Amino acid sequence: MTPYKDQFLPIEKVFRDPVHGDIYVEHQVILDLINSREFQRLRRIKQLGTTSFTFHGGEHSRFSHSLGVYEITRKICDLFQRNYPVEEDPINGWDDNERLVALCAALLHDVGHGPYSHTFEGIFGTDHEEFTVAIITSPETEIFSILNNVEAGFPEKIASVIRKDYQNPQVVQMISSQIDADRMDYLLRDAYFTGIEYGTFDLTRILRVIRPYKDGITFNASGMHAVEDYIVSRYQMYMQVYFHPVSRGMEIILNHLLKRGAYLHQEDSSYFHDQTPLLRPFFEDNYTLNDYLKLDDGVLNTYFNMWLDDSDPILNDLASRFLNRKPFKSARFNPEKDQALVEELSELIGTVGFDKTYYTAINTSYDLPYDFYRPEKEKNRTQIVLMEKDGSLTELSTSSALVASLAGQTHGDDRLFFPREMLEQESLSLFQNEVSLFNSHFHNGKLI
Amino acid sequence: MTPYKDQFLPIEKVFRDPVHGDIYVEHQVILDLINSREFQRLRRIKQLGTTSFTFHGGEHSRFSHSLGVYEITRKICDLFQRNYPVEEDPINGWDDNERLVALCAALLHDVGHGPYSHTFEGIFGTDHEEFTVAIITSPETEIFSILNNVEAGFPEKIASVIRKDYQNPQVVQMISSQIDADRMDYLLRDAYFTGIEYGTFDLTRILRVIRPYKDGITFNASGMHAVEDYIVSRYQMYMQVYFHPVSRGMEIILNHLLKRGAYLHQEDSSYFHDQTPLLRPFFEDNYTLNDYLKLDDGVLNTYFNMWLDDSDPILNDLASRFLNRKPFKSARFNPEKDQALVEELSELIGTVGFDKTYYTAINTSYDLPYDFYRPEKEKNRTQIVLMEKDGSLTELSTSSALVASLAGQTHGDDRLFFPREMLEQESLSLFQNEVSLFNSHFHNGKLI
Amino acid sequence: MTPYKDQFLPIEKVFRDPVHGDIYVEHQVILDLINSREFQRLRRIKQLGTTSFTFHGGEHSRFSHSLGVYEITRKICDLFQRNYPVEEDPINGWDDNERLVALCAALLHDVGHGPYSHTFEGIFGTDHEEFTVAIITSPETEIFSILNNVEAGFPEKIASVIRKDYQNPQVVQMISSQIDADRMDYLLRDAYFTGIEYGTFDLTRILRVIRPYKDGITFNASGMHAVEDYIVSRYQMYMQVYFHPVSRGMEIILNHLLKRGAYLHQEDSSYFHDQTPLLRPFFEDNYTLNDYLKLDDGVLNTYFNMWLDDSDPILNDLASRFLNRKPFKSARFNPEKDQALVEELSELIGTVGFDKTYYTAINTSYDLPYDFYRPEKEKNRTQIVLMEKDGSLTELSTSSALVASLAGQTHGDDRLFFPREMLEQESLSLFQNEVSLFNSHFHNGKLI
Amino acid sequence: MTPYKDQFLPIEKVFRDPVHGDIYVEHQVILDLINSREFQRLRRIKQLGTTSFTFHGGEHSRFSHSLGVYEITRKICDLFQRNYPVEEDPINGWDDNERLVALCAALLHDVGHGPYSHTFEGIFGTDHEEFTVAIITSPETEIFSILNNVEAGFPEKIASVIRKDYQNPQVVQMISSQIDADRMDYLLRDAYFTGIEYGTFDLTRILRVIRPYKDGITFNASGMHAVEDYIVSRYQMYMQVYFHPVSRGMEIILNHLLKRGAYLHQEDSSYFHDQTPLLRPFFEDNYTLNDYLKLDDGVLNTYFNMWLDDSDPILNDLASRFLNRKPFKSARFNPEKDQALVEELSELIGTVGFDKTYYTAINTSYDLPYDFYRPEKEKNRTQIVLMEKDGSLTELSTSSALVASLAGQTHGDDRLFFPREMLEQESLSLFQNEVSLFNSHFHNGKLI
Repeated sequence: MTPYKDQFLPIEKVFRDPVHGDIYVEHQVILDLINSREFQRLRRIKQLGTTSFTFHGGEHSRFSHSLGVYEITRKICDLFQRNYPVEEDPINGWDDNERLVALCAALLHDVGHGPYSHTFEGIFGTDHEEFTVAIITSPETEIFSILNNVEAGFPEKIASVIRKDYQNPQVVQMISSQIDADRMDYLLRDAYFTGIEYGTFDLTRILRVIRPYKDGITFNASGMHAVEDYIVSRYQMYMQVYFHPVSRGMEIILNHLLKRGAYLHQEDSSYFHDQTPLLRPFFEDNYTLNDYLKLDDGVLNTYFNMWLDDSDPILNDLASRFLNRKPFKSARFNPEKDQALVEELSELIGTVGFDKTYYTAINTSYDLPYDFYRPEKEKNRTQIVLMEKDGSLTELSTSSALVASLAGQTHGDDRLFFPREMLEQESLSLFQNEVSLFNSHFHNGKLI
Repeated sequence: MTPYKDQFLPIEKVFRDPVHGDIYVEHQVILDLINSREFQRLRRIKQLGTTSFTFHGGEHSRFSHSLGVYEITRKICDLFQRNYPVEEDPINGWDDNERLVALCAALLHDVGHGPYSHTFEGIFGTDHEEFTVAIITSPETEIFSILNNVEAGFPEKIASVIRKDYQNPQVVQMISSQIDADRMDYLLRDAYFTGIEYGTFDLTRILRVIRPYKDGITFNASGMHAVEDYIVSRYQMYMQVYFHPVSRGMEIILNHLLKRGAYLHQEDSSYFHDQTPLLRPFFEDNYTLNDYLKLDDGVLNTYFNMWLDDSDPILNDLASRFLNRKPFKSARFNPEKDQALVEELSELIGTVGFDKTYYTAINTSYDLPYDFYRPEKEKNRTQIVLMEKDGSLTELSTSSALVASLAGQTHGDDRLFFPREMLEQESLSLFQNEVSLFNSHFHNGKLI
Repeated sequence: MTPYKDQFLPIEKVFRDPVHGDIYVEHQVILDLINSREFQRLRRIKQLGTTSFTFHGGEHSRFSHSLGVYEITRKICDLFQRNYPVEEDPINGWDDNERLVALCAALLHDVGHGPYSHTFEGIFGTDHEEFTVAIITSPETEIFSILNNVEAGFPEKIASVIRKDYQNPQVVQMISSQIDADRMDYLLRDAYFTGIEYGTFDLTRILRVIRPYKDGITFNASGMHAVEDYIVSRYQMYMQVYFHPVSRGMEIILNHLLKRGAYLHQEDSSYFHDQTPLLRPFFEDNYTLNDYLKLDDGVLNTYFNMWLDDSDPILNDLASRFLNRKPFKSARFNPEKDQALVEELSELIGTVGFDKTYYTAINTSYDLPYDFYRPEKEKNRTQIVLMEKDGSLTELSTSSALVASLAGQTHGDDRLFFPREMLEQESLSLFQNEVSLFNSHFHNGKLI
Repeated sequence: MTPYKDQFLPIEKVFRDPVHGDIYVEHQVILDLINSREFQRLRRIKQLGTTSFTFHGGEHSRFSHSLGVYEITRKICDLFQRNYPVEEDPINGWDDNERLVALCAALLHDVGHGPYSHTFEGIFGTDHEEFTVAIITSPETEIFSILNNVEAGFPEKIASVIRKDYQNPQVVQMISSQIDADRMDYLLRDAYFTGIEYGTFDLTRILRVIRPYKDGITFNASGMHAVEDYIVSRYQMYMQVYFHPVSRGMEIILNHLLKRGAYLHQEDSSYFHDQTPLLRPFFEDNYTLNDYLKLDDGVLNTYFNMWLDDSDPILNDLASRFLNRKPFKSARFNPEKDQALVEELSELIGTVGFDKTYYTAINTSYDLPYDFYRPEKEKNRTQIVLMEKDGSLTELSTSSALVASLAGQTHGDDRLFFPREMLEQESLSLFQNEVSLFNSHFHNGKLI
């Protein structure tokens, strides 16, 4: 009988995808992974968390993104095998025996994500990457069983790709580097679903110039502008979509809402009776992998829904602001010189009756669009290198003024968040002076 | 002070939409309706229910569809006002005083939808259109307050558009006819998100030929092919997407799962303790509007999630099949001559140990892509009429062979649904004969 | 040394194409054919002739269409080789040794087209298909040399595919049948460039269900709706784009202009002195292949440009109408009962001073969107057949009501063309009665 | 009777455009201009000249671009009139009486282009902008008559917009600035037709933030990233498309071909007999506007076609290289230090038998993607300014690191062009040493 890892579907299975057209599944292993319960669960977790409160089209799930990363990886493997097989170039070539490792790692790279990961992790100290590894390597999961069927040790192999310590750097960099299948899919996919064109770059052309070499992945120098364009698109998506102040205003409400729930439970462990059983292990910092796998966006929203009727005024108010989309407003400030002002305004928010802990927040969103190697840094990112026709390598920012202008520098902003009422006389009619004072520091969207 | 209904936003508010580019909101009333809690709730209800189990991109919500219907209606109003104002043509022209009625009705036409509406209504006897009317006209809702602020009786006006008995047929047909803003948006939107091109038709051209007349909406005869193309696209979406057997295989599991839950509760009202409080009013057929507004996709999924650990084997198995996407398989049959065979096969499914009530189903999906007026029918659909340059009217199917071929006839199929195990020897190794027998009746996807 | 036919480019050559993304060239033979002078000449011949006078975006050349047909054929070969190789299915499978034949025939299928082919052929009795064969098989062409380098007799092989008598029906039907690479490319390409969405169909899905069988090409029955949609798109493009009355109004001017030029030369062979040397062989019906290859759109337009200053009033007027886009207007009529009226109106056109031969025309454009096999017809088209899972075949229109409604029936219209002046009082102020009379027969775009 | 300038079409005339969807014409004046012979002539002149030899889809004409510039201008006027009318803001607002001036100037801004303008102007000293002004202001043109019908002096008004000295800077900058309707259309259009995605930017969003102010056009500061993205797209199109070495390799052949033709005529004015009458006035530097209007791409190609058979070996060889697309190859060099090497290699090209004058060339293509105001420069470009909510203005590059990295610096390269034969041993078998020597200086596409 054909070994499991070599079982190919008699007819390719196809998933219609609006971003890539069709996603082709050829291995029985991949189909089984997609059908596993841990993977299907990704259908119930939005890719973009609170971003869909700003861009209503962005309601797609981590399920569709994971399929997309798989598909881009599959295309790269095809290209590498056709054009740069290790049989012809033993030093820089691609060994197609690595294909199944790459495909599984691509498909599963995000399987450990939970609901509103970023916020949830901040509150409960979980880590989606650790959960990804745990799902892959824990004997109780369906995914482990499938991978282990391929061969003993195979789950651990996939986990090592996720952890970036797999021995083949080409596989690692396909899935995780500054220009990898993960980022390429999410930029295109988030752009497609939100309807924001900034994230669009020329995948076809990038796939024409990508190539393996002994230390990982590189690009033909002739494709420099395509890579440059990808870096700029990535930067634009961060500036325009991922860091949008309204989404962050919702994220802060979510954060404070979960924090308040945890606080109430910690104050009195019978507070919620049996109404929120699936969150209890996290309130108590005592959870299993299985507890984690029970969670999804709908579970949290259902609990928030019930909290609408809770007697705690902060809990029910924040729940209402979240479910009914009443984001905190915000203003930029300069962290180096506006500290006193921020402090003063926070006090003012307290004065008019809001609990400062739950109704103010400072949020800082910065991204490093691209980084080159810097010897002084402990943890360096894999830099992007271009290969000339003669095989010589150059780092991207040395040949692109655009990339150089973005490289090594973070971009983003620091913002003070606060209830919209602080800007409205009619909402706080008893505190006209405070509102006026608050408004007087708010100018062109910045604090002054 | 400007009356509420005439309050325009100083700068238009824009929602970026991948289907229409931008959605423009000009009235304060519309912005307030969008921000109401009943409308925001639509973010938590998928437009396509179980279809996203087949086309993974189709995860968009009824929120985005409702905005889309609003936007198409707004565009139609603009066109009518510019080209066919009642001031110039008192008989057939458009009275722009109706604009706000049309916009509100368009935005709210689906606000009464609940989670997995089609299935839910089948089990619990609810009706989303009645809920739409209730939300619009019940004093406890935010939507009612907003509409009532426009003027006394305004909520009832909007409700009458929903019920199709509003006095102005142009407004009614914009929102609800065989070619209305609702259908136009969902075809384009569902096509965009699923990545299925069949649903694409030429909205730009339809908007160029649409026009008002005294009995409602018509189209310039020169645009016949554009309208024809829309009818064909609609037909294709039904055949290819909405009636897809895999989605229906999931819908049946959902149906039986809810039915089983209701049954268990009805047998023993303490069965679920306090685990599923939001469903209880529906199990007991004793619900309020507020109970209904608490529901969304996430609530149902959360309960299914908990049912995974329930001791009832049918309940936990069906919950697992639903959450982990294990659709029932199906085969077409001819309802006129295959009744005995269907009966026989259902018995066989019982024989191998499945409870027939929950593990078999007959599902019939038929659509009437287009219908003309038929005097013998009680309830006729508004037929599509074309207007010649001289003002004479003709019914669409008389000038289109394509439409004539689809008109007045339902398209779809009858299917028997059953567990996938019935086709797999290895799953039911104790029942080899039964499985063989079952398979022998399964040929080219049909029962024979 | 590697035989010429097996020489593959070390790195694939890629042509960026807006319709197909990238067009991949792998064989040296194909690259050489593209670079031949006979093929490069196609850059100077518009795909859509006078259609760009109606849809200004449709200015693409036969060069880009030919590359597109090649690319679709290449994709089909890849699919056939991967899924249905003759090695696994000796009866119905695909023999990949036929690949180069298919690719060359696809690339060259239109190489014999000249400027404004349809019109030109009508006037001068040329035939683009015969020229295609001549270019392929004549020792003086570069294309012949390239093909002959592959192997002796290879040019003749390609020619036989063009003539549809090649021994392998799969190859013939790929290039030429009711659903072939040629039609698939031109529908998509013409739709893309004109901006008309009617022509869009789901190529991805068609490529998923297309398959070879012993008598040619078939489609999996599961893909029926995709094929159906293609037929409808084709019909819509004919109705909306290819038969557009304005383009036909320009085509008639072109026709009459060339006819007048030929007439003047035939009356007096020194009439044009040496001003139009490249047309002379055609005026004199005495041309060589090389004479034909000298022609392109620009040559004809250049001559028309010079005719603007010619002393013959009909010649210079028609040249001006053509270059400056003054199409004849038209009205539909019923050929069975309106003959007398058409006659009468033509007389009227003569009465006001236009030469009837050059200023009136009847133009009939009919298309048969799809045809099934009809024993009584001499020359049958290859019908489209669907293959069930068990290998049984059915003809398309038996399973599609839409296709059945279009099948076997021509669609289009008969029109009388005339100068726009006939509808304008101010242009023909001396003939008010005639213009009034003419107008009185013109109603809703038809003659009455 | 309604004055000509206020005559609106009873029903808007619509041109289907693949880039903008529909182009709306409302004024009779605009429709008449489009129908004029000088404007229709633009159909026969490709927008991208020799670029379609590299990107075969780029075959669109200046006609479609001109319509596109008109349409973007029309949209801007609509937006300005709705949101920023001078009636509400007498200082910064838009005066809609300027609309017709803006629309006419937008439509006509390129009407003076001739065939392969860039090259043609280099050889014959013509200037398309001067011809644009001449066409608009010369009494013999149809365009002049139409404009003059609007009101006396109107042609001169339009001409002054073209010359950028019109008194209203808003109108001037709409048509001509660093971010104007002209550039916006050609980037989108060229990207669409070539299939290159680099040129795509978010027009919808730019139109949402563009606004008038007293000194011209500005953008709301909130739209900074949209403007930034436009600048980057523009840069990418120059780097990737407009400066493509293959297109430049064709342009040089064209240049030398025309130069050779002119030389032969100047040596002997009877050389071409009467074969190339339309070029003669330019060979003799003695042309009228009418002579210029006779020219188009097809005329030049037709003459090249005849030159294929000319006895002058340089003329017929270059004609063949042009028509049959045999571009010169090229290599980058550093103009500051490689002069001697370039000299040496040119000599080598002469040594093997090519006439250096016609078979070598240095071509330098540089673009300044964006420039800010620099007091030391004589002729400054209008810089792009952003407007904060409080009305304060900032120059773009001060708030965008990306733009700053491109600003004030030219981007492009210097290249030596030469016949492909110089790199091929087999083509020049008698000059093995020279070819080897030549090749030895060619490394990674650069001279060393």
